[in-house]
Amino acid sequence: MTKKIAVLPGDGIGSEIIEQAVRVLKALDIPLEIEHAPVGGTAYDLHGHPLPPSTLKLAQESHAVLFGAVGDWKYDKLPREHRPEQAILGLRKSLGLFANLRPAILYPELANASSLKPEIVSGLDILILRELTGDIYFGTPRGIRTATDGPFAGSKEGFDTMRYAEPEIRRIAHLGFQAAQKRSRKLCSVDKANVLETSQLWRDTVIEVAKEYPDVALTHMYVDNAAMQLVRAPRDFDVIVTGNLFGDILSDEAAMLTGSIGMLPSASMNASGQGLYEPSHGSAPDIAGKGVANPLATILSAAMLLRYSLDHDAQAKRIEQAVQRVLQQGFRTADIYEAGMTKVGTAAMGDAVLKA
Amino acid sequence: MTKKIAVLPGDGIGSEIIEQAVRVLKALDIPLEIEHAPVGGTAYDLHGHPLPPSTLKLAQESHAVLFGAVGDWKYDKLPREHRPEQAILGLRKSLGLFANLRPAILYPELANASSLKPEIVSGLDILILRELTGDIYFGTPRGIRTATDGPFAGSKEGFDTMRYAEPEIRRIAHLGFQAAQKRSRKLCSVDKANVLETSQLWRDTVIEVAKEYPDVALTHMYVDNAAMQLVRAPRDFDVIVTGNLFGDILSDEAAMLTGSIGMLPSASMNASGQGLYEPSHGSAPDIAGKGVANPLATILSAAMLLRYSLDHDAQAKRIEQAVQRVLQQGFRTADIYEAGMTKVGTAAMGDAVLKA
Ligand SMILES: CC(C)[C@H](C(=O)O)[C@@H](O)C(=O)O
Ligand SMILES: CC(C)[C@H](C(=O)O)[C@@H](O)C(=O)O
Repeated sequence: MTKKIAVLPGDGIGSEIIEQAVRVLKALDIPLEIEHAPVGGTAYDLHGHPLPPSTLKLAQESHAVLFGAVGDWKYDKLPREHRPEQAILGLRKSLGLFANLRPAILYPELANASSLKPEIVSGLDILILRELTGDIYFGTPRGIRTATDGPFAGSKEGFDTMRYAEPEIRRIAHLGFQAAQKRSRKLCSVDKANVLETSQLWRDTVIEVAKEYPDVALTHMYVDNAAMQLVRAPRDFDVIVTGNLFGDILSDEAAMLTGSIGMLPSASMNASGQGLYEPSHGSAPDIAGKGVANPLATILSAAMLLRYSLDHDAQAKRIEQAVQRVLQQGFRTADIYEAGMTKVGTAAMGDAVLKA
Repeated sequence: MTKKIAVLPGDGIGSEIIEQAVRVLKALDIPLEIEHAPVGGTAYDLHGHPLPPSTLKLAQESHAVLFGAVGDWKYDKLPREHRPEQAILGLRKSLGLFANLRPAILYPELANASSLKPEIVSGLDILILRELTGDIYFGTPRGIRTATDGPFAGSKEGFDTMRYAEPEIRRIAHLGFQAAQKRSRKLCSVDKANVLETSQLWRDTVIEVAKEYPDVALTHMYVDNAAMQLVRAPRDFDVIVTGNLFGDILSDEAAMLTGSIGMLPSASMNASGQGLYEPSHGSAPDIAGKGVANPLATILSAAMLLRYSLDHDAQAKRIEQAVQRVLQQGFRTADIYEAGMTKVGTAAMGDAVLKA
């Protein structure tokens, strides 16, 4: 059966990196129906909205979404609901993409790129599982109002609601334990249960779910401590499961430990296996249009797409091995370049992957 | 005039490290009235509450509080309101200690202790200014309830309220700009304004306050990006101002970049100069009672106490220089020890500082 894939390049370097990933997908022996649509600032310019109804409809009708990146300084002044980031939040919510998988892997070939000492990070391989449709990202009530209580009653105040319901915590916890079972059977749940009620329910619920996974060693860590331990001894972690806000912060921190965020893919999935796949890095408007961006994170996102939404594990592995090979062959885009290697642009890197 | 200082040693290594800091304070030529009181788990064991009324009263009547550390695994099972951490939250709120100063400084003598490469961190000197009495830490409503709306209506849910009022943001922003004026005139305000209403008001208000400080270069950064940039290029930062929750995470991350959290003091102040001073590290129950803990962060906290609450800048400098000297002399507690240095215990380190 032909599977439908929505390709949303977005802004900045989005279209350049997506192009290479699409080339790789098309080179495989899989019947795919690939359809493009605008998203982010690009879509705002065309249709007056960062996530136009036609783009959302395409995403909803597809088995998977391959997403580039959104955002550009020129949209910073727009009211929040028209800013490019709203597209990604809207897609997550509309498609119910509650499970965000963010691997932080240090490729041996790129060990020097890390700002950490090699003896601290070499071999790093962490999986952060971030809940993606709940928490303070979407919690209501929220807004700007006049405070009616407390020491600042009468003043203008901003407010947001952090909230998690038990079943919402349970479903992401299950995925955390299942991911841990496939790896080294260690799961670290990160919260701020010493201060937050939401975190207390989070912790209690994760402990409850743990009873179904006696083969997984569960630990708990406060988010401030996790931010520290990631710097001190990142390899002590294997799978981390956490909420939307803490996951946002920790997954970016973990990605940066590798020093090569241009290499890191991500997957955001819903309960029926539909998923959105995107590089962990942003739209990098400063280098857009120059043909120098690193397409590997997007190509690896396409591999995740094949594995998780299309059940083509063997094809996913082929792509991952090809990427590993081009690194071994010495091909490097500017962001991961070091002396002695072969510096290539976006398209040439795509060529190298295709060849490998 | 004799100034009153409340000394709250707390749990774990608290009493050992506090003892050395008190010795240093007493050795100075300043009339001080020093009074001790229990806090944290120790106070719970004695009085059934981590912050007994008598301890709170002493703190309120003092010019400054010198605080050790609280927490021990044996209190983890207590209901939240009796856990040791509630003492520190209670003190912050009762004394109105809204401004938390957390320096992250890498001592040249301890450059090897960092997990980051020397060329990334050497000379690191960041000041994080964390708002300490607002945000989701204290925001109401909060609790556990049955959800009445959204996809999980009918389920148990935990919820908390993030909130900041304009004057609350303004007063910490002013301190941020003033701190920047005394340093390199660069202030980075950290928020999550692309998602949170509270952050949008935070950002708008900081921009408003900036007009009064045309000599300071203000930048804004999202918290996820800040967590990354701290790892990538920490020296790009000088003064960071942020809310309570983001400050909790980022200040711990920044502290760990130095690799020597046993060296880092902190100050928490209110509008009238009253302050609470404590090391940035925790109560380390695993090494409590062994006489091996590093007292330097607490001794440096006493120096901050002299500077900020007692206006004895010269005496503060004397202590800081003495600490620098003992490092140069090669004295090291176990946490910062490396081959070739002189390993000393808690008391011997206190002796060395007194001598210097
Ligand atoms: C763009 C922004 C809304 C988004 C988030 O905070 O989730 C981004 O930082 C991410 O992690 O995908
Ligand atoms: C103990 C805890 C409540 C506290 C906090 O979160 O503020 C601690 O982490 C700190 O940073 O002082």
